[in-house]
Amino acid sequence: MSTTTTFLGLGAMGSALAKACLDAGRPTVVWNRTPHRAHELGERGATVATTVQDAATAGGVVVSCLFDHRSVHDVLDPVADLLTGRTVINLTTTTPHEARELAGWADERGISYLDGAIMAVPEMIGGPGAAILYSGSATVFDRYRTLLDLWGESHYYGSDAGLASLHDMAMLTGMYTMFAGFMHGAAMIAAEGGSIRSFAERAAPFLAAMTEGLADLATTIEARDYDGEGQQSLKFTETALAALLRASVDAGVNVEVLKPVHDIVRRQIAAGYGKQGTARIFEELRSPQARRPRSTG
Amino acid sequence: MSTTTTFLGLGAMGSALAKACLDAGRPTVVWNRTPHRAHELGERGATVATTVQDAATAGGVVVSCLFDHRSVHDVLDPVADLLTGRTVINLTTTTPHEARELAGWADERGISYLDGAIMAVPEMIGGPGAAILYSGSATVFDRYRTLLDLWGESHYYGSDAGLASLHDMAMLTGMYTMFAGFMHGAAMIAAEGGSIRSFAERAAPFLAAMTEGLADLATTIEARDYDGEGQQSLKFTETALAALLRASVDAGVNVEVLKPVHDIVRRQIAAGYGKQGTARIFEELRSPQARRPRSTG
Ligand SMILES: NC(=O)c1ccc[n+]([C@@H]2O[C@H](COP(=O)([O-])OP(=O)(O)OC[C@H]3O[C@@H](n4cnc5c(N)ncnc54)[C@H](OP(=O)(O)O)[C@@H]3O)[C@@H](O)[C@H]2O)c1
Ligand SMILES: NC(=O)c1ccc[n+]([C@@H]2O[C@H](COP(=O)([O-])OP(=O)(O)OC[C@H]3O[C@@H](n4cnc5c(N)ncnc54)[C@H](OP(=O)(O)O)[C@@H]3O)[C@@H](O)[C@H]2O)c1
Repeated sequence: MSTTTTFLGLGAMGSALAKACLDAGRPTVVWNRTPHRAHELGERGATVATTVQDAATAGGVVVSCLFDHRSVHDVLDPVADLLTGRTVINLTTTTPHEARELAGWADERGISYLDGAIMAVPEMIGGPGAAILYSGSATVFDRYRTLLDLWGESHYYGSDAGLASLHDMAMLTGMYTMFAGFMHGAAMIAAEGGSIRSFAERAAPFLAAMTEGLADLATTIEARDYDGEGQQSLKFTETALAALLRASVDAGVNVEVLKPVHDIVRRQIAAGYGKQGTARIFEELRSPQARRPRSTG
Repeated sequence: MSTTTTFLGLGAMGSALAKACLDAGRPTVVWNRTPHRAHELGERGATVATTVQDAATAGGVVVSCLFDHRSVHDVLDPVADLLTGRTVINLTTTTPHEARELAGWADERGISYLDGAIMAVPEMIGGPGAAILYSGSATVFDRYRTLLDLWGESHYYGSDAGLASLHDMAMLTGMYTMFAGFMHGAAMIAAEGGSIRSFAERAAPFLAAMTEGLADLATTIEARDYDGEGQQSLKFTETALAALLRASVDAGVNVEVLKPVHDIVRRQIAAGYGKQGTARIFEELRSPQARRPRSTG
């Protein structure tokens, strides 16, 4: 029989994770600060723990999916002693720094720790397209692989517990800026009374096609070779961005999302790099302490 | 025999357009301000005009692909009289406002005008994936369709000459912000010594998959219905963006590209919309004069 899984936190995401576990016929214990949220899962066959102490002593692996880093400590600190020698898989969204803090906290208490970053909305859990990035204990990742794979594709990033969150956040940055840029575009279309839906029909495949250029961009950045063939120059990009800003202002659209990109390009040109590739935007964003890649592979 | 096509401007893009025309065996006249750029096309069989007057009197349809709006006037104004009764297809990048100005200028002089926005780099011209958006004279679009289709997929947006540029620019806004957001993500990875190329391998398909959400976003925005089911709330997004910013600052990454998105979300929450969908970002970007869509189709 498979190990008991104890879920701490039954918000939208925690409930979806617990449901997938129940649907697979695995023994499932659930706990939530506000008790009523456990009700439905109880009816589906989960054991409802009324206190976090009861949950922590129910045995098996503990999966936490709470609001944030702070709430993870709020829930786990009082039961830390009960968790020594056990395993915690924390799927709460945290920064890399916070994930490392939790891994250290667990390590001091003899708790095996795996950190996860969920790349899906609750409705996607257990279906195609859901992915969860993991880092921390490789032993935990291997041992509970069957459980993890119930939720989505499982990707392991390494023993440094911060890496799953790091990669998750780095990807989300691209997503949020793309969404904001799309809405800027939609605002330009709306200013002229055009259909935003027809715009999206063209823009979605266009933007998807443009992601094919990211691999080249990455190679350029990793090599710090902004002089290579086939790169769009900063000067070219400056002209294009200036036109976009002019058109946006003409249309009365708020340019605060787009303007910083233009500002960065202009600073690079002012620094004498106008003929180099647009990937130099990276040089304005990166940390002054940025380390060279770990591997050149 | 097909009509002569006269190209004004033989930069990277103008040369690519002229080459495609020559490769199709069509009579081709070329002119460039700096004469040496015409040399190679001359060797491939193009008639090289030494003055713009010679080019303008060579007959056929005139295709301009110059640096910007200003340079189009620099080139066309002196030969305007020679162009009366003729056709100009202008593929120079301009704003919608500038495209309309050129259409008006042409109209006053009895010149048929089609404006085009090229969604490709020169190497893509004539190959799969190249697209050119057009607006202005429908007659010109239909009559020269065979020529236009030599360069890429041809999309007609309507008789208002500004529409091709408008749609082009609205899409490019999404592209540039996505690229900048991707480079922000790359800077986060680099700060930890991670491989940017491995990051791109995961980020590219992830971002491509996220474009599938744009259609829903567009429907929400067009209906201005930010209360509907399944929308990620502004509060949720604020928490996520705050974590991304915190992690970026921890890593020493410059947040100027991402911060405006967070600022906008926070303003919407401060205005009382925290429980509404994140598509409300649109409300902070759109022009106060934004018109309702022309059609609801
Ligand atoms: N929803 C998504 O689309 C999504 C996607 C990726 C990642 N995530 C991450 O998954 C985690 C959970 O998200 P969610 O959507 O499930 O959020 P949610 O619906 O708001 O649920 C939050 C959960 O945290 C609990 N909680 C908050 N503060 C607490 C505290 N101090 N002590 C004890 N419990 C506390 C809540 O308990 P009460 O019921 O008592 O308030 C609730 O169970 C978050 O870190 C989120 O970033 C969510
Ligand atoms: N390259 C791309 O990837 C791309 C993609 C989409 C759209 N476009 C658009 O296509 C247009 C041309 O781009 P390109 O890449 O071919 O640029 P380019 O290589 O810089 O060429 C610019 C052309 O404009 C001419 N020119 C500039 N100012 C002039 C003036 N005042 N009078 C006469 N001629 C003048 C130049 O002549 P000289 O040789 O004498 O300087 C040259 O022929 C631009 O509007 C650009 O935005 C380009």
